[in-house]
Amino acid sequence: MNIVYKSTASRGELWARLLAELAPEINFRQWPDIGNPLDVDYLVAWQPPENIMQWFPNLKVLFSVGAGADQFDYASLPPELPVVRMIEPGLTQGMVEYVTFAVLGLHRGMPRYLQQQRQQQWLEQPAKPAAQCRVGVMGVGTLGEAVLQPLVQFGYDCAGWSRTAKNLPGVQSYVGEAQLNAFLARTDILICLLPLTDATEGILNASLFAQLPPGAALVQVGRGRQLNHQHLLEALNQQQLSAAVIDVTQPEPLPEGHPFWRHPAIWLTPHIASQTQPESAVRALLDNIRRFENGEPMQGLVDRQRGY
Amino acid sequence: MNIVYKSTASRGELWARLLAELAPEINFRQWPDIGNPLDVDYLVAWQPPENIMQWFPNLKVLFSVGAGADQFDYASLPPELPVVRMIEPGLTQGMVEYVTFAVLGLHRGMPRYLQQQRQQQWLEQPAKPAAQCRVGVMGVGTLGEAVLQPLVQFGYDCAGWSRTAKNLPGVQSYVGEAQLNAFLARTDILICLLPLTDATEGILNASLFAQLPPGAALVQVGRGRQLNHQHLLEALNQQQLSAAVIDVTQPEPLPEGHPFWRHPAIWLTPHIASQTQPESAVRALLDNIRRFENGEPMQGLVDRQRGY
Repeated sequence: MNIVYKSTASRGELWARLLAELAPEINFRQWPDIGNPLDVDYLVAWQPPENIMQWFPNLKVLFSVGAGADQFDYASLPPELPVVRMIEPGLTQGMVEYVTFAVLGLHRGMPRYLQQQRQQQWLEQPAKPAAQCRVGVMGVGTLGEAVLQPLVQFGYDCAGWSRTAKNLPGVQSYVGEAQLNAFLARTDILICLLPLTDATEGILNASLFAQLPPGAALVQVGRGRQLNHQHLLEALNQQQLSAAVIDVTQPEPLPEGHPFWRHPAIWLTPHIASQTQPESAVRALLDNIRRFENGEPMQGLVDRQRGY
Repeated sequence: MNIVYKSTASRGELWARLLAELAPEINFRQWPDIGNPLDVDYLVAWQPPENIMQWFPNLKVLFSVGAGADQFDYASLPPELPVVRMIEPGLTQGMVEYVTFAVLGLHRGMPRYLQQQRQQQWLEQPAKPAAQCRVGVMGVGTLGEAVLQPLVQFGYDCAGWSRTAKNLPGVQSYVGEAQLNAFLARTDILICLLPLTDATEGILNASLFAQLPPGAALVQVGRGRQLNHQHLLEALNQQQLSAAVIDVTQPEPLPEGHPFWRHPAIWLTPHIASQTQPESAVRALLDNIRRFENGEPMQGLVDRQRGY
């Protein structure tokens, strides 16, 4: 069995070491040293090469190293080629940590306190109990479900918005376009964990922000192209939104002088909410290869109609 | 039954309203309108008046409105007067939220990312899994136990240091002076939740910091007089510590120009980690008064020998 891996060299080293340990029978090749392209079975990549099937005519599965698979040009891929997103506990755990951090920080007014600190102000703000703070997650897949769990445990008033109804303890489920307004109207802290599709591109815009209660806050951990930067800045400056924690942007990194770098109500991080952990990612890959070879369904198989 | 309450007027209003609802038989008086001082049974205060027994010769119990009772001048209080700290779920929940926020933020390098943001740097730092991040809580009382619970659930490698051994699931217990060094040597994120006593005054100093692994971080939510500011600054500047989240200082607020206001590796908040929530605090007070009148032990009774 032959795998080609295409990401950074340092990560490739780690994957090579882990695969040698866990599955020594696998022939692991790091881009650009791909060996004989005709015998490559599996490609594991963030950004694959163009014309992927011309490179690897006998490819059986394309694996993304990240939670998303929106970076692939599906038009150039044969419709029968399975494309698989990474679902692994390290990635999920990282997202849970990041979102919990962001929600606790926004609930307790930390962006404002850190601003006050730099202004040498010592000024207590009232904090409402978690039960009176309404948190809403857009996109309730593997990651959305996972982040809701500790938020429910902390006592937040939680809801999720998704394409299909979800039945999660302590989480009110809102479904589809028809219930988006009602979901937004009850949400003080909005978390975007949507996949990037035609329907979600640009979804975080002025008309969406206007439907949130005044003073609401945003946690953007979906995809950069979902957020309209100018609309966010206007919503913050008009105090329709009070603060935003942003991990993904379009482009990445932002250009020099972009207003997000210096905005006091924005906390910006460099796409680190969820970092694939090689140990658990390699295990997830091996499990999916085993499933594929046994004719079982793979975890994270992309439904091309849905787009994720 | 007559209660005198001495704190801010706005909080007093809230307490008056809640008590009128929950225990209309109680005669609630707000400082300075104390009525006949001879018939005052209970004093609820943060800073009580001086010569408290001359004011209220028939006082039965002195209640603190906060989690600590170190603000009282015990020399001026009759030895038989019970002094009670506030233990109520709102106060505990607030501390749990704050400490979880701080630990997640320090574990995931957020102080550094926010610095990078202001410098327009987009630079991913590696994150280790929670299981490889060793969190240690100094002071394992009601609050310490409560903050450890979510930290264990997030998968951190947790330990507690206390006067007596504790048996908490997922938490290694270190006891007394003899085990302090071992506790510090295994702690990447140190949380101080100690009460203020002669033994803990100034405990967060250069010699303690030197025993932590290089690059460790501090969360100071104990009492201001426990932390040596100069030693913290030196430890940060020498990179013995990487960051600190500080909610209490001595004095409060810090004077203008104090280096904590502007230090990039310090997050400073104005003593807001744990804010007494009037609803649950009034219930806790009523429960303790009922206990006292029935001769049952009160929650949070101060042991004057121990000092908390």
